[in-house]
Amino acid sequence: MQHILIIGAGKSSTALINYLLEHSEKEQWTITIAEKDLALANNKIQGQKNAKAVFFDVFDAELLNELVGASDLVISMLPASLHIHVARKCAELKKHFLTASYTTEEIQALHGQFNNAGKLMIMEMGLDPGIDHMSAMKVLDELKEKGYELTGFETFTGGLVAEESVGDNPWKYKFTWNPRNVVLAGQGTCKFIQEGRFKYIPYHKLFRRTEQIYIPDHGYFEGYANRDSLAYIDVYNLRGIKTLYRGTLRRPGYCAAWDAFIQLGATDDSYEMENVSNMTHRQFINSFLSYNPNDSVELKLAHYLNLDLDSAIMFKLRWLGMFEDEPIDLRTGTPAQILEHILKKKWTLNPEDKDMIVMWHKFNYIAEGQPKQLESSMVAMGDDELNTAMSKTVGLPLAISAKLILQEKIKLTGIHVPIEKEIYEPVLKELTNAGLTFVEREVEPTFY
Amino acid sequence: MQHILIIGAGKSSTALINYLLEHSEKEQWTITIAEKDLALANNKIQGQKNAKAVFFDVFDAELLNELVGASDLVISMLPASLHIHVARKCAELKKHFLTASYTTEEIQALHGQFNNAGKLMIMEMGLDPGIDHMSAMKVLDELKEKGYELTGFETFTGGLVAEESVGDNPWKYKFTWNPRNVVLAGQGTCKFIQEGRFKYIPYHKLFRRTEQIYIPDHGYFEGYANRDSLAYIDVYNLRGIKTLYRGTLRRPGYCAAWDAFIQLGATDDSYEMENVSNMTHRQFINSFLSYNPNDSVELKLAHYLNLDLDSAIMFKLRWLGMFEDEPIDLRTGTPAQILEHILKKKWTLNPEDKDMIVMWHKFNYIAEGQPKQLESSMVAMGDDELNTAMSKTVGLPLAISAKLILQEKIKLTGIHVPIEKEIYEPVLKELTNAGLTFVEREVEPTFY
Repeated sequence: MQHILIIGAGKSSTALINYLLEHSEKEQWTITIAEKDLALANNKIQGQKNAKAVFFDVFDAELLNELVGASDLVISMLPASLHIHVARKCAELKKHFLTASYTTEEIQALHGQFNNAGKLMIMEMGLDPGIDHMSAMKVLDELKEKGYELTGFETFTGGLVAEESVGDNPWKYKFTWNPRNVVLAGQGTCKFIQEGRFKYIPYHKLFRRTEQIYIPDHGYFEGYANRDSLAYIDVYNLRGIKTLYRGTLRRPGYCAAWDAFIQLGATDDSYEMENVSNMTHRQFINSFLSYNPNDSVELKLAHYLNLDLDSAIMFKLRWLGMFEDEPIDLRTGTPAQILEHILKKKWTLNPEDKDMIVMWHKFNYIAEGQPKQLESSMVAMGDDELNTAMSKTVGLPLAISAKLILQEKIKLTGIHVPIEKEIYEPVLKELTNAGLTFVEREVEPTFY
Repeated sequence: MQHILIIGAGKSSTALINYLLEHSEKEQWTITIAEKDLALANNKIQGQKNAKAVFFDVFDAELLNELVGASDLVISMLPASLHIHVARKCAELKKHFLTASYTTEEIQALHGQFNNAGKLMIMEMGLDPGIDHMSAMKVLDELKEKGYELTGFETFTGGLVAEESVGDNPWKYKFTWNPRNVVLAGQGTCKFIQEGRFKYIPYHKLFRRTEQIYIPDHGYFEGYANRDSLAYIDVYNLRGIKTLYRGTLRRPGYCAAWDAFIQLGATDDSYEMENVSNMTHRQFINSFLSYNPNDSVELKLAHYLNLDLDSAIMFKLRWLGMFEDEPIDLRTGTPAQILEHILKKKWTLNPEDKDMIVMWHKFNYIAEGQPKQLESSMVAMGDDELNTAMSKTVGLPLAISAKLILQEKIKLTGIHVPIEKEIYEPVLKELTNAGLTFVEREVEPTFY
């Protein structure tokens, strides 16, 4: 019997736990789910005999030692900052370790220890980062093997609500992942490289410099740039590439409307507002507008942001209730915290809502002297409230790679992100079997 | 004989040193000018017999001890962060101490020591902070004494180039003070209170929310808000006031054009740009614009910022040479550092140029049930390259208060900023004699 320790049984662990439970009998695994909320963990196990739930606290050193010691492979779904505690214990006790979070220098420092122990640690093994790395590297390696010259690579991912669950919501968006990250998205300066030129977009222009992206059978999306694309030159070994651009997908119209909040200063997280406990939605918006007792908040905002009163952006703001004299119902908060709180009133998934993940890559390359363009896309749909697209796309890469490691089909040691063929090839194959399929198509290259 | 120690003989010390030298014989003072650059210090003394120059290094504890020990009163023109070293020594050796810099918590902690020693330390005794405090408190105290209710206070100061030295410069602006602070001005969120409502302006909107200000005999100016006006509620003891707004003055048209740099992201100081050593002015601007080999940088910028190609803003940018393929001539830099470097090529004062200081206060109050508005303004002109308006307005408050302390006409002890009548009344009187005069006028109150 091999033993798997899963730390954390939250919303995003559903598909991971289900996959491992399903395979546990055939693979002869026992599974321990370590979680602060024992009821939650037991609910995920649903009485399966190879699994048990135990109480967990990452700062209980003795408990951590005991649980990791008893396992062959550990998967952490903890908040990103806590992985390091588990990673050090896995290095010490010589266990494989997997997470879906971005790797850090602190974690990279353990590479030698994992290597010497003959154990593998994979970071960034979820959706984004994770599936994006694997699906991109597959094509990048294929192009390289054919001797083609890669000139550009763009990659976009978005966590959205399924079209069927949009209803009358003009944003066509709800929170399907950490709302705070959605509100703060893009803060700082965005850097990328386009046709060999370094380009910079300040935050207050980011949501007005979107790309229009077409995905067969799903229509148009819009994408805004992620913070630092330049760092990915090294991750994907693309030194010398002329265009590199990473971004986030939304449905058309979202970004221009979201920009209204940015222009107002309503996404600022750097200071606490005054008098929050007495503030209404309308007063929150009015805090960012000039004082004038004779003009309405609507007119002041429309004039400030140069919007027509009957524009789609004004309608989106009205639909959110931003102009209502409804109490915010918070005692303190930064503008970003207050905005998040207001948005949650309308952007929270209903139990019957389904989410959706969209990923899209564009590769430009030169084949036999001719410019070519290949697009690759994946769309994943949630089944229900528990089995969300987010949970599948984050959890299945972890679950599948855990299986492949325990089956000794992946034999790498040390710390890796999934850009190696030994990892991405078998994992992508199994993801396809699970319905997470990339569709590739050659299109006419677009020029500037 | 009383002895005065002046630390620092830079550009802003000219008027301070001249005033003290002029009064040294009558007042029986000897003056030591402590400065790293001995030639500079000797040049300021011009052979006057009561004064001498000595080499100085703030980190030479023995030297500091000796120089402070031999003096009755010390004035520091060092960079703000270094005052604390001198302040501690003055507290220890029981000497009066004056600076023109903002006070800090670290410095405030010495209050008891100065108090027990029976010595006075005045911080914020320059122009802004300094003359602004004194001239505002004079009116605020007068209104209070008359039993009037203050409803609003706005105060703006600007360091500008004199109208006669503007020439063909469409910005009507040159650097007369620290250029870096001008480039970074306004970063962060601006907070103020207007008619009892807290208002917030994000940096990317700040230069588009200016106030138009008229000063008799000098015409119109425009003002943008300083970062945090709310802190001044306590400084001026104005709790309950409905409107409080502090800002910076420029000539009309400056702010909307400066906003173009902000919109581009060219004032960002948070990251180093790539390939700076090969960059031209034009490429610097192009870094913030979309890639398109068929469109000109001018057209891309005009479209991005919604400007007419023949607009005054485009002309201002063209006048600066922003679209020229002239090498920037820096090896590395943040956008803000590069912009500062380019601006210095055109915005540096010529030897014959004169500078100008403009300060303006607006007081709204209720007198006998009637709303009233009082405006108070001061305009100071530089005489020449050495005797700048900046040097006069920063140096004379220090020099005059030094004289009044040594004459025992100011008897306060401990640490103060010049908001007390005992300080501001005699200092303002002498400033008027020196030509730094406030003109007050009652105007029709403006309403929103």
